[in-house]
Amino acid sequence: MIKTGIVGGTGYTGVELLRLLAAHPEVDLQVITSRSEAGMPVSDLFPNLRGHVDLAFSEPDIEILSQCELVFFATPNGIAMKMVPELLARGVRVIDLAADFRIQDIEEWQKWYGMEHACAEHVAEAVYGLPEVNREAIAKARLVANPGCYPTAAQLGFLPLIEHGLANISALIADCKSGVSGAGRGASVGTLLAECSESMKAYAVPGHRHLPEISQGLSRAAGSDVGLTFLPHLTPMIRGIHATLYAQVDDHSVDLQALYEQRYADEPFVDILPAGSHAETRSVKGANTCRIAIHRPQAGNTVVVLSVIDNLVKGAAGQAVQNMNIMFGLDESSGLRNIALLP
Amino acid sequence: MIKTGIVGGTGYTGVELLRLLAAHPEVDLQVITSRSEAGMPVSDLFPNLRGHVDLAFSEPDIEILSQCELVFFATPNGIAMKMVPELLARGVRVIDLAADFRIQDIEEWQKWYGMEHACAEHVAEAVYGLPEVNREAIAKARLVANPGCYPTAAQLGFLPLIEHGLANISALIADCKSGVSGAGRGASVGTLLAECSESMKAYAVPGHRHLPEISQGLSRAAGSDVGLTFLPHLTPMIRGIHATLYAQVDDHSVDLQALYEQRYADEPFVDILPAGSHAETRSVKGANTCRIAIHRPQAGNTVVVLSVIDNLVKGAAGQAVQNMNIMFGLDESSGLRNIALLP
Amino acid sequence: MIKTGIVGGTGYTGVELLRLLAAHPEVDLQVITSRSEAGMPVSDLFPNLRGHVDLAFSEPDIEILSQCELVFFATPNGIAMKMVPELLARGVRVIDLAADFRIQDIEEWQKWYGMEHACAEHVAEAVYGLPEVNREAIAKARLVANPGCYPTAAQLGFLPLIEHGLANISALIADCKSGVSGAGRGASVGTLLAECSESMKAYAVPGHRHLPEISQGLSRAAGSDVGLTFLPHLTPMIRGIHATLYAQVDDHSVDLQALYEQRYADEPFVDILPAGSHAETRSVKGANTCRIAIHRPQAGNTVVVLSVIDNLVKGAAGQAVQNMNIMFGLDESSGLRNIALLP
Amino acid sequence: MIKTGIVGGTGYTGVELLRLLAAHPEVDLQVITSRSEAGMPVSDLFPNLRGHVDLAFSEPDIEILSQCELVFFATPNGIAMKMVPELLARGVRVIDLAADFRIQDIEEWQKWYGMEHACAEHVAEAVYGLPEVNREAIAKARLVANPGCYPTAAQLGFLPLIEHGLANISALIADCKSGVSGAGRGASVGTLLAECSESMKAYAVPGHRHLPEISQGLSRAAGSDVGLTFLPHLTPMIRGIHATLYAQVDDHSVDLQALYEQRYADEPFVDILPAGSHAETRSVKGANTCRIAIHRPQAGNTVVVLSVIDNLVKGAAGQAVQNMNIMFGLDESSGLRNIALLP
Repeated sequence: MIKTGIVGGTGYTGVELLRLLAAHPEVDLQVITSRSEAGMPVSDLFPNLRGHVDLAFSEPDIEILSQCELVFFATPNGIAMKMVPELLARGVRVIDLAADFRIQDIEEWQKWYGMEHACAEHVAEAVYGLPEVNREAIAKARLVANPGCYPTAAQLGFLPLIEHGLANISALIADCKSGVSGAGRGASVGTLLAECSESMKAYAVPGHRHLPEISQGLSRAAGSDVGLTFLPHLTPMIRGIHATLYAQVDDHSVDLQALYEQRYADEPFVDILPAGSHAETRSVKGANTCRIAIHRPQAGNTVVVLSVIDNLVKGAAGQAVQNMNIMFGLDESSGLRNIALLP
Repeated sequence: MIKTGIVGGTGYTGVELLRLLAAHPEVDLQVITSRSEAGMPVSDLFPNLRGHVDLAFSEPDIEILSQCELVFFATPNGIAMKMVPELLARGVRVIDLAADFRIQDIEEWQKWYGMEHACAEHVAEAVYGLPEVNREAIAKARLVANPGCYPTAAQLGFLPLIEHGLANISALIADCKSGVSGAGRGASVGTLLAECSESMKAYAVPGHRHLPEISQGLSRAAGSDVGLTFLPHLTPMIRGIHATLYAQVDDHSVDLQALYEQRYADEPFVDILPAGSHAETRSVKGANTCRIAIHRPQAGNTVVVLSVIDNLVKGAAGQAVQNMNIMFGLDESSGLRNIALLP
Repeated sequence: MIKTGIVGGTGYTGVELLRLLAAHPEVDLQVITSRSEAGMPVSDLFPNLRGHVDLAFSEPDIEILSQCELVFFATPNGIAMKMVPELLARGVRVIDLAADFRIQDIEEWQKWYGMEHACAEHVAEAVYGLPEVNREAIAKARLVANPGCYPTAAQLGFLPLIEHGLANISALIADCKSGVSGAGRGASVGTLLAECSESMKAYAVPGHRHLPEISQGLSRAAGSDVGLTFLPHLTPMIRGIHATLYAQVDDHSVDLQALYEQRYADEPFVDILPAGSHAETRSVKGANTCRIAIHRPQAGNTVVVLSVIDNLVKGAAGQAVQNMNIMFGLDESSGLRNIALLP
Repeated sequence: MIKTGIVGGTGYTGVELLRLLAAHPEVDLQVITSRSEAGMPVSDLFPNLRGHVDLAFSEPDIEILSQCELVFFATPNGIAMKMVPELLARGVRVIDLAADFRIQDIEEWQKWYGMEHACAEHVAEAVYGLPEVNREAIAKARLVANPGCYPTAAQLGFLPLIEHGLANISALIADCKSGVSGAGRGASVGTLLAECSESMKAYAVPGHRHLPEISQGLSRAAGSDVGLTFLPHLTPMIRGIHATLYAQVDDHSVDLQALYEQRYADEPFVDILPAGSHAETRSVKGANTCRIAIHRPQAGNTVVVLSVIDNLVKGAAGQAVQNMNIMFGLDESSGLRNIALLP
């Protein structure tokens, strides 16, 4: 049993992590912290956990956290970087579900996140936790930077094209639609039901923080910088990301369907749909799966990839558990075999 | 491993049963039938099952079904009653998720369901599958009539009051709100998103088929006929039933909170919330739990019970699996430990 | 043209009032105040008003407001009572869409609203603005207390029964379902889409502020105190209230359908549906209509009334405009002939 | 008063047309036909119309329709083309809200719509009813082909770029998100609330009928054939289209914001939002407005245009009324001044 702690468990990433860890056969969840809710039983805040999680939130305490083998950070950006050095120094491994260690270029990170980085010295060792790319490094990592939700859907969808040098990497487009839980559990007018139900809108069109993260991942795969237009949209649903990806692929000789199937043949959580399919976000609701469909409309040069995930699972807490499984040598699917809830 | 079959698996009850059985450690699902979809892989119809269920739908065939130890009927009303006699004769046990065996009074059944009963001789032996009332009989039953969704929520909410003779049983009111999946997966104008989203309405106010079922259960508990007004409402959400139950309770000396807690103390799937709580349907989304809160507003004579379930789980497929567990001597919670999906 | 002002126009009641007044042929909207948004063009906050409302929010200023013939308060509770005395003194008529003047019993008001009343001396003259009850008094009023949303739906549904002494007034039940816009436009976790979509729950079961308001109205109609159980539910939709009303009516000799049709025969905004109907909230979305259906299930003693309104129109801004029309001798339907948006 | 008839009024386009025409000061609606519902009062099918429309559906009858000055077809594709020749012959003007006359290339039309065209001889004279392009021709037209919903949003968004030769017309992308009402009021599993709520998916990626219509319009504006990738998505809401349009614009010297503002300066129903804005579909719910925002993310070569309409208003019935106003010399905004319903 892995002794585990969670820092910051009052958001949607936190409750989803609790749902998964509470049912995980190899995890002993010892502590969950929250400054704002210290003392409150976790199941008072999240009634779905009644009977499944008996812990109460506690004040973050480095001594207690140090007794864990693994600590997850489900905190806002900028928190993990302050506590990680000491945890690592004490031999605790860390998975950060926030963005503190996702971007290797620290200046770039500081520009997008609007703060000074508090532990730049650990960024280089952080492993970007996309198992389909970095599985071996994750296994050995002390510090894993769990990917963002949009970046997971977008990278998994684009990678086969880019790794094979098929796409024109100067003009990639990722038109992404996210459920509202992606905006978090904080009180805010913009995500009230009465504001965002029965409506659709793009947001952050001039620039969203996930842009440099996606670009970094695709550029690594390409071996040179990519040009990406990334457009997030707020969609009137709770969970789910639908990434609609456009790439110019002049070469018509490659069987793209086969290419994708081969690329992900051994991946437990990437499912390439049969040719001609349309991926639905509901097919992954509550599950750690990314489902992908590939199209070349009108046999033209524009290839369209449809990539869907549950933003809170493969896009956050589920991927974190997958990374934990890899780090600790467990079956990669352990605790992650939930079937999506449909309807 | 219990050799199991499903007759009629193309509706929402069917897909939910598949989700639960596919993850059940003691079940060997051998056959799933559908006349309309025979030959189609189950996961083509329900993409959430890709990688989890490899079966294809097949034509219903009594020979094949007879090789099962247990057959679930997830069919429309009126189908099970035609096949049950032969299955029972061959030693197969049956759980009918439809209404064919729920009402003991055959004339009453025929009036509400508008058809002749095809196997009246087996109605008497059918055990009404509400474990919180009939656990022992279920364990020995050959034929279990799985309760309806509204009846499950309403009976579990009313029973403690009625079993203790506290309520005026001549004027019970059950104001129930159901998600749209309760209306099934059939094409119909009334349950299109564009018709029933962003709207609330009562339906079947003059009389709904679940009225005699609830009345039968409450009358048994009371030892005499109850007078019940039952009002179902179509609510703009997929899953969930919220039963708001009203009873006149003149006796103010009883601690109702304690009464409910004691009544369900040993029940794995009934959770009495702390005094003053409000039950939310989302707290049971995808889970087999019924959550109940008890109020006596303004310390008056009207007691209000809030009872929530997932109509497809505790209100259908989950309760069927719970009944299976009881019938076959398994841990009653086996395969039913999913935590509700929140948010 | 009536010179009109609005105090507090940044909430949902405010934007709805703006929508209606901007299209009203007899209204000259001169000022709209908001402390928090002073200086911002109204249409920056509410883009639906682009091209229709050119005003910017301004600081509330008694001098400017005094130049209006009529001032609407679309403020939180407790604001209007501080400004009303001076406005009345200067000859300005007032319609308060908040609750400051709805309850005649000031102690009762203070108990439910948790504050001292700042102008108790004007409560007695305030006319409760339910035109179907108080039309003549409204016409002459200086100060109109616009009814709450639940109280409008519940009173219009109960009144015919109570005015004719048909119902047992000691055990009335109002089971009400409201869209989320009723909770207002303030940032709050509980009304985030990710919290209240795909879920149903009751709230404030121990006691909601609209209880004394409904009781006051029904008690007046009855000539003696009524006993009412009022249960509000948060429903996953933006607009709409569905009141399901239960009353014991032992007298079976009265034709209730005819009674209701006669009671509201001359009312422009109450529509009694044909016998056997079910009222849908979407049939009044955006319209000032209250639609009502009457049932007596199983020919029993429990009469069920279904009463639907748009909480922001007949339940707030539309009724306020109706009151204005009456106060200023205009056609009562002026500016209120919008047809509900369906689907 | 224009004597007007509607053929086929039982769908969403029909009820929206009724909502608009019932409130139009210059329209005398004389007849509305429906084979399936002949004899039923319109307001029985659409309760929002109670008190506003007194007509009943009648069998289509060419004699009665011939007494109208204008007939709208709100029928499925393939109906109008059978009745139009006779109506034109009798001097009746026609606006077809279906697709029969939208595509000038009859072979192309037959390929996409899968049927023989029944009156190819009238296709050439049909005027494509996009007032922002064809206002003068519409004024004189006998036969107007009302544009599709996606084509309206996409063309209005792309046109300024293309008319000025700024975009690379060989690689245009229209990623469009539509509410479910766009799929119509027919019973169908795919548009049940329980199927398409809480989910997002693309559909018809290999080819959608609106592709040739958009291409035709853009090619006309460009003066040569365009290459367009068009991806429609089913979005969990009732109304609204959000078109996210991508074009390569290498020329950085043009002020695109000014270009769009000038192009639509005199258009009553196109609203260019301030620079940096994000268009929301709810800002046009129930209104005939198209709202557009223009972005050039990261100052790159990819220009992004956000274009939103209500698919049933500017995308169907509202545009048809706008065309009627133009054809009959009325104020173009007559009957179309509704403010969008927000929230």
